Amino acid sequence: MLSKSRLKYIQTLGQKKFRLQEGCFLAEGPKLVAELLAEKRAAVLEIFALEEWITSNESLIGATNCSKVSEQELEKISQLNTPNLVVALVKQFGDAAPDPVEGLILALDNIQDPGNLGTIIRIADWFGIKQIICSEGTAECYNPKVVQATMGSIARVAVFYTDLETWLSAQASIGIYAAVLEGKDIRKMDPLKEGILLIGNESKGISPEILALANHRITIPQKGKAESLNAAVAAGIILSHLVS
Amino acid sequence: MLSKSRLKYIQTLGQKKFRLQEGCFLAEGPKLVAELLAEKRAAVLEIFALEEWITSNESLIGATNCSKVSEQELEKISQLNTPNLVVALVKQFGDAAPDPVEGLILALDNIQDPGNLGTIIRIADWFGIKQIICSEGTAECYNPKVVQATMGSIARVAVFYTDLETWLSAQASIGIYAAVLEGKDIRKMDPLKEGILLIGNESKGISPEILALANHRITIPQKGKAESLNAAVAAGIILSHLVS
Repeated sequence: MLSKSRLKYIQTLGQKKFRLQEGCFLAEGPKLVAELLAEKRAAVLEIFALEEWITSNESLIGATNCSKVSEQELEKISQLNTPNLVVALVKQFGDAAPDPVEGLILALDNIQDPGNLGTIIRIADWFGIKQIICSEGTAECYNPKVVQATMGSIARVAVFYTDLETWLSAQASIGIYAAVLEGKDIRKMDPLKEGILLIGNESKGISPEILALANHRITIPQKGKAESLNAAVAAGIILSHLVS
Repeated sequence: MLSKSRLKYIQTLGQKKFRLQEGCFLAEGPKLVAELLAEKRAAVLEIFALEEWITSNESLIGATNCSKVSEQELEKISQLNTPNLVVALVKQFGDAAPDPVEGLILALDNIQDPGNLGTIIRIADWFGIKQIICSEGTAECYNPKVVQATMGSIARVAVFYTDLETWLSAQASIGIYAAVLEGKDIRKMDPLKEGILLIGNESKGISPEILALANHRITIPQKGKAESLNAAVAAGIILSHLVS
């Protein structure tokens, strides 16, 4: 059983302010927790789980702190509509921005929707992209909705927040490729060994001051009439053409 | 002002059962309603809007029935968390399944998430795909969440529901391409002039009896460690490589 103060502490981590202050986040469900436990980069500080999950996952749990909770307690600490057996308290990764950039990385200018950000992290992981640089206005990657949408990829892709304009300005010798509505057809480009692929906000696209720093404009050719593509779908399509 | 019975009638269209019975659906927000009004294929039966929207959209409204509603009324008929100026009552399209298939089309085997279905319809529209065939277990395309996620593309892409196994069995002379985890690398394929591109359920993929009907298995090559891609992202990536 969890003490009232412990329960309250975990509940506060539903809010960004407390996640930032404590340097922790929550991850839920058997699949996500198993991925985090298996990944060396991730430090799982404590697990809160129903007895049935604990019994069948003893080797996975190993030496990690694990507290048995009741269904009522799980419901109280869960951020999901349907609590799913286990919640893990995980240390935020806190890596530093890459300097210099190596290989192909993503830069996100104010992606707002947590589902989109989580999906982009999952796509990056699929294509072997190790780092994502985010503007300060981008959704927080430790938001429970983002963490869930990554399907475990949050454990393998480093996500950094910085003043994107300043950071991009300092990247002197690497190609910056901005995904826009009019630019070079990605179907006619060769795969890239290195570069920064820039994806903009869902409705406003890339902000003008950021776009000015790009030295290439690239486009997914439109054949029909939809005005735009979802930002995560666009990121996936571009990576599928440009990852070498 | 709306009569109580009219208000109640519109509210019932939030439920699939009543949408099916009445052959109608609801679309909300200035952008979506403008796209539906502009598209010949779509029959907008009535518009319910705040005075400010009506005043600035008179030419768009033309001869369409239009009722002025109060903010309180709009809130009652809206399916969104934040009502957005205008709701349109639209006739379901009710097209028949294509026979024979011409060009490239999508077939969906039990896509469950309304957001994914809406995003796939928007992607199809971007790439000029005119038809989507859905298994009967696929989310309903007139669900308000689907309609919103299409961003207006519901007006331009025909979506059919049928027994997918029976329908595919009858497609004798056309290629059926199943998106799976192990198959031919889409990056090495030539664009397709015609064919049926098959996308499976978010967690279970394509069901075995449907997969057995495919004569090609195709794959988005995985470079990293994510176990899968979101179904809509996968559809977008595959279309970007295979649309001619």
